[in-house]
Amino acid sequence: MAFPYKKMTPADWEYIRSVTAPERVLVGAEIPETYFHDEMPEYGSFPPELYVEVLNKEEISAIMAYAYRENIPVTCRGAGTGLAGGATCKYGGIMLSVMRMNKIEPVDHKNQTITAEPGALLQDIQAAAAAEGLLYPPDPGEKTASIGGNVSTNAGGMKAVRYGLTRDFVRCVEAVLPDGSILDFSSNVVKNTTGYDIKDLVIGSEGTLCILTKVTLKLIPQPAHSATLVIPFASLEACADMVPRVLALPFVPTAIEFLEQELLEIVERTLEKSLPVKEGAALLIVMYDAATREELDQAVHLAATAALENGGLDCYVADTPERAAAVWSVRGSILEAMKLDSVSQEECDVVVPRSEIAQYVKQAKHIAQRHGLRVEPCGHCGDGNIHTELLRGPEQSDEEWHTATRAALTELYALAKALGGQMSGEHGTGNGRLNYLKEFVGDRMIRLYKAVKLAFDDKLILNPGKLIEFND
Amino acid sequence: MAFPYKKMTPADWEYIRSVTAPERVLVGAEIPETYFHDEMPEYGSFPPELYVEVLNKEEISAIMAYAYRENIPVTCRGAGTGLAGGATCKYGGIMLSVMRMNKIEPVDHKNQTITAEPGALLQDIQAAAAAEGLLYPPDPGEKTASIGGNVSTNAGGMKAVRYGLTRDFVRCVEAVLPDGSILDFSSNVVKNTTGYDIKDLVIGSEGTLCILTKVTLKLIPQPAHSATLVIPFASLEACADMVPRVLALPFVPTAIEFLEQELLEIVERTLEKSLPVKEGAALLIVMYDAATREELDQAVHLAATAALENGGLDCYVADTPERAAAVWSVRGSILEAMKLDSVSQEECDVVVPRSEIAQYVKQAKHIAQRHGLRVEPCGHCGDGNIHTELLRGPEQSDEEWHTATRAALTELYALAKALGGQMSGEHGTGNGRLNYLKEFVGDRMIRLYKAVKLAFDDKLILNPGKLIEFND
Repeated sequence: MAFPYKKMTPADWEYIRSVTAPERVLVGAEIPETYFHDEMPEYGSFPPELYVEVLNKEEISAIMAYAYRENIPVTCRGAGTGLAGGATCKYGGIMLSVMRMNKIEPVDHKNQTITAEPGALLQDIQAAAAAEGLLYPPDPGEKTASIGGNVSTNAGGMKAVRYGLTRDFVRCVEAVLPDGSILDFSSNVVKNTTGYDIKDLVIGSEGTLCILTKVTLKLIPQPAHSATLVIPFASLEACADMVPRVLALPFVPTAIEFLEQELLEIVERTLEKSLPVKEGAALLIVMYDAATREELDQAVHLAATAALENGGLDCYVADTPERAAAVWSVRGSILEAMKLDSVSQEECDVVVPRSEIAQYVKQAKHIAQRHGLRVEPCGHCGDGNIHTELLRGPEQSDEEWHTATRAALTELYALAKALGGQMSGEHGTGNGRLNYLKEFVGDRMIRLYKAVKLAFDDKLILNPGKLIEFND
Repeated sequence: MAFPYKKMTPADWEYIRSVTAPERVLVGAEIPETYFHDEMPEYGSFPPELYVEVLNKEEISAIMAYAYRENIPVTCRGAGTGLAGGATCKYGGIMLSVMRMNKIEPVDHKNQTITAEPGALLQDIQAAAAAEGLLYPPDPGEKTASIGGNVSTNAGGMKAVRYGLTRDFVRCVEAVLPDGSILDFSSNVVKNTTGYDIKDLVIGSEGTLCILTKVTLKLIPQPAHSATLVIPFASLEACADMVPRVLALPFVPTAIEFLEQELLEIVERTLEKSLPVKEGAALLIVMYDAATREELDQAVHLAATAALENGGLDCYVADTPERAAAVWSVRGSILEAMKLDSVSQEECDVVVPRSEIAQYVKQAKHIAQRHGLRVEPCGHCGDGNIHTELLRGPEQSDEEWHTATRAALTELYALAKALGGQMSGEHGTGNGRLNYLKEFVGDRMIRLYKAVKLAFDDKLILNPGKLIEFND
């Protein structure tokens, strides 16, 4: 163990400049505050001692070998769009930005893959694939995220129902270990049972085990046809009950999202966007992709029929790209709308079995109410992943807000656990959920997590204090 | 580290009997030889000191806690159908059979999952799902494998092209750690970013990290329609070149297998089974599943057209279940036919990028020829996973066979690596490939594997000497 870490000195700055370039290194007060936190400043603001933008794996390797020897913590940072307080220098040290490592190689058609550096943006990878008639399906709301961040958090998003998570599209990663070694975890192959599956352990490990330097991603043929259905229901229960029915149909939906009326009103009030369907207490947005028009028509027909037979008040079909984009734009505006409609936010990203969605949402509202908090659950209904947003009102003092959110979150996590769920579905543990992790997974699991962390990072220099905390 | 392990004493036998039942414990000469090896006796024959059939996780926990304290190795065994020499007691100790733990819970329709104990057979899980109109897609050739073994080796099989591997269908596992602790890795949720992804590390870890006691598996709607195409080509290259073309079509095939004429002749000669297509040097078997007849017809039409435009000599469509079963029966008989046609077999299970299949097969033949070995490559073309079977002739002495296979395997693995492939696609490392692992992945990776193993099993008592060897 490596506490306390070395405080960086001018000699350390000089070394990092010598293996990178002086104009890519900032120290102390030169470092913009934006690098002190991610998209959830609630989860802590931590100034790095040194900020460096690297260009290649050799620079990363040199920095890590030095940091390892000198006992300096290093936190890798992508686009900084995380929602768990993950990419911050909790213990100071070096912030290593990979955002200049953003090359995207030409699509490999024979293997249907694309290879990119970690700083490449999700939207640029999606565009590069689309330009060749292929689809990179993972579709988290934040398109300006870096692909390295997406892999490090196993980003989910809207289309996970049909296509799966980022994990399902990662063929291989190249990474630098804490001691500076460069390793490939798997290669451009479809399956691999050689040794331990380190690749899948590294995916979602939030930069605590290694620093990604290259990823190769699976692509699929671009579906030629898509449609999005908007189906209002009189109650949340009826809406939630529809989910397993949709999933039991012969066509697998691409996405199933749910929204309650209250949330739609917030989006309309703050951003003047609205859905074509106004009725009901809650609604489902169901999307289908298909290779042919006939397949799409059948999928839509079966889903619409099932919906109307099971309490759906209506079924609006957005069957042009423009109409579908308008629907998804409302869904995509929720976080922004909630930010405009509140002083600050806390977020609980639990995932529960699909069968327990209605149960969770109902009880989550009771919990929030009991603690005097506004709550807006919404999210990936097809995945059971409910983003439970707690919104701070202008009347709440810092202390009131913190006390109430902490108490509510403790109960929300306990509720998720009681329903057979998990603490985080896609946003990760980071720094923001660390206080709840031990209670959630138990002491023996924490010991196992620590042993796994030490297997990679025996000096605890890589993104320390995230996902797992030794200093408590 | 725990070498040397304790030799078991009558007091140890007594203890194991006391926490299980005397009639479920065998010792020494009472243990049938069938438990000394798996389906590849080439990879070693190792008698356990004690063989026990357990009934539940509490028994497993009690045995592990005792073995941990007493420094006795424990190897978990399922149906023993592995092909890597994995489920054998290389260092003696306890063989723990989970084959009496074979309960399958009723299908959970709301979550579309099925939960089973590790000794349940793959074919019984497939049948239980099918009885409810659902599909458990992983389809390795060996249907009498236990599901615990399938998860422990991340079994692949024919249908991985469309549906993925066993890994892709494991929602959660319950397991006993080497010290006897019982933990759940994830739960019945679609996604999970809570802490480290231990579940995916455990999948494919060949019983070296923990013992599975329950698995929950994702199911999907049963596709209503299927068809299988058999497409002969004049050359192996033309056959291999067709694979990326099939994958670029808008419908994703369920399976793409390739067979060379020579192999078909072996199956015909030994088992009197043959395909309806006799011409060509090599052929592809392509399968499509579809939700509707129209979708299937379109998929078949596009594939057949593409095949005939790109060197396909013919395209036979098996569009009834009986015809398709006849085709797949030939494919499924290969291992048996090769066993009948040779004194013994060695097998190389490499996986290469799909783009390199033809290259690999051609060079693999040269390598085998140079070492005077018969070789029959075949397999999962859609995955780049080529089972390269080396067949021993009656004229070869033990020494000739071992020297030649070792030399050939060394070159075959080097070839796979040079082509960007991996040592094993689906059969695993076990004991049989251990001698080639270090060369393949390098020293730093071996150190990382060792650290990961120790994170779970600090006394090295769980299936020691498999996947990773400390005693060298």
